[in-house]
Amino acid sequence: MAVIKAAILGFGTVGQGIYHILNEKREELRQKLGVELEVAKIVVRDTSRERVAGTQHLLTDNIDDVFAEPGLQVVFEAIVNEEPAYSYLKRAIENRCHVITANKVMFAKRGMELQELAKTNGVFVGYEATVAGGVPIIKTMKNILLVNDVSRIQGILNGTTNYMLTKMRQENLRYDEALAEAQNLGYAEADPFNDVSGQDAFKKLMILSDLAFDEQPDWSEVEVVGIDTLTEEDLAAAKEQGLRYRHVAEVEKDASGKIIARVAPLLVNAEHPLYPIDDVFNAVAMETNYIGTLTVTGPGAGMYPTASVMVEDYAEIIGKRAGFTVTI
Amino acid sequence: MAVIKAAILGFGTVGQGIYHILNEKREELRQKLGVELEVAKIVVRDTSRERVAGTQHLLTDNIDDVFAEPGLQVVFEAIVNEEPAYSYLKRAIENRCHVITANKVMFAKRGMELQELAKTNGVFVGYEATVAGGVPIIKTMKNILLVNDVSRIQGILNGTTNYMLTKMRQENLRYDEALAEAQNLGYAEADPFNDVSGQDAFKKLMILSDLAFDEQPDWSEVEVVGIDTLTEEDLAAAKEQGLRYRHVAEVEKDASGKIIARVAPLLVNAEHPLYPIDDVFNAVAMETNYIGTLTVTGPGAGMYPTASVMVEDYAEIIGKRAGFTVTI
Repeated sequence: MAVIKAAILGFGTVGQGIYHILNEKREELRQKLGVELEVAKIVVRDTSRERVAGTQHLLTDNIDDVFAEPGLQVVFEAIVNEEPAYSYLKRAIENRCHVITANKVMFAKRGMELQELAKTNGVFVGYEATVAGGVPIIKTMKNILLVNDVSRIQGILNGTTNYMLTKMRQENLRYDEALAEAQNLGYAEADPFNDVSGQDAFKKLMILSDLAFDEQPDWSEVEVVGIDTLTEEDLAAAKEQGLRYRHVAEVEKDASGKIIARVAPLLVNAEHPLYPIDDVFNAVAMETNYIGTLTVTGPGAGMYPTASVMVEDYAEIIGKRAGFTVTI
Repeated sequence: MAVIKAAILGFGTVGQGIYHILNEKREELRQKLGVELEVAKIVVRDTSRERVAGTQHLLTDNIDDVFAEPGLQVVFEAIVNEEPAYSYLKRAIENRCHVITANKVMFAKRGMELQELAKTNGVFVGYEATVAGGVPIIKTMKNILLVNDVSRIQGILNGTTNYMLTKMRQENLRYDEALAEAQNLGYAEADPFNDVSGQDAFKKLMILSDLAFDEQPDWSEVEVVGIDTLTEEDLAAAKEQGLRYRHVAEVEKDASGKIIARVAPLLVNAEHPLYPIDDVFNAVAMETNYIGTLTVTGPGAGMYPTASVMVEDYAEIIGKRAGFTVTI
């Protein structure tokens, strides 16, 4: 059986999820793909802490160890910020490794560049996990774009704020109470700025803009309004009228060909497709020329949804077999 | 530029849609795929009627003409019943042609068999258009199944009955009035039995069962209840309570591993994901082990949605390049 070696960069929630799924599905993936995947290295900042039993010998805090690994062909990246993620993935691609990332902050800025570089080097970039967690919006849109044009994308791209808006409405919580609950459950970070300000949704929207339109709007021209402006009175008033606030990200190409994007709270009624999307769910609606409007809905975050789409990226890349050197 | 020859079997709404899209997207598909597609033959029952200007010279009522065409590599099939569609596609596969079908009646019964035969012959079967029109449920589920298990599928799989239920609710129409309107718009056929009885949704459900569970339930054990049992009083009573009838098809694997399926009207409230799915829209929700529940929604019928996913099947198959003999 051929063996393919992989590294995992970052071993937090998502990185650990990848490791667990690769173990649980080892036999099935081997049968489906005809190759065995071996996690050879895991890059962390603190190697003294064994996060998953039996992985101590794989941990390293030195990226050079990863690239020194003979026969490394796949790099899973689940780090949070732009650096060192970008430098690591650039180096991985230059070393002719396929890369699979969940890093939206990095990818919103550097995604096109990494994809160009990957093309030159004959490898693939999987980035399904950068947008909407377990919702396979990237693959769905790539497939649609084979034949259709996408003119507009509208969606709920942040699970944390959707959870908070749901709780504020259902349980009449104040903004700070809903935030505290989201933090308790691990949905929101200690510093919730990226989520509640709309910056997280904005980054994901830019990745979708790259895919649908092959370009992004000028970031400085995009209006990004958070949910931190909404009070419990706003929510109560909406509820009374049978309406719901959704934190909606949208991007479209206008008649002149200009890309227009916006992230802001939106009041929707029961007829709107985003009305029933509660809790940490995400939903993305695409307007296309032949099919019409297509919507994909699912869990927007979490260890297993996000890690699972990354392993799907791996399986898809292996399915293509492009550029793989199979070591028997 | 390499040329790939294709035939279209059946030149009704969907067959014509394929032809139009292939023409409109000729240049784009050529650039994306690196090959030129030429429609070499169109099989119809009556060759005297030119349905699309400029296609007269391609029409034939003799399937032998198709297989006599040198270098034929792709067969699009958009015929209605099991025969002669099955025999034609079997022969196409044995002639090492890739086949792309929209024929749910045939595929519910013969799909597994054709896919086995295709495997043996090193060709592909595209069947996205057999279920839910323009909604890419087959590709989405295939992708999910690379890593996830699907335990349950629930959906609105028939656009005609969903349209009728919508009209009955919104405009207080009687069943027969809603049916007449659906017939006027071309959604329902002169004999509406397959749609309103649930048989059409049942066939699509069986195709999804094949894909998710690699088997179907015993057809005789599946309860199939149509919408023809619903009166305008039922609809009015539901409306008063803020509820809606949806015609729901579902299939699941129970704890013992048995496949259980059902098609029947279901009353849903505003929290249910199928509540806002009106008109000819379809929606399919899949319960999976890692991702959770994933829902895909879009137009369930129509010339362009259905034809467009068939051309996507073609593009995907060409992308794989498997078994293609490219003639330069």
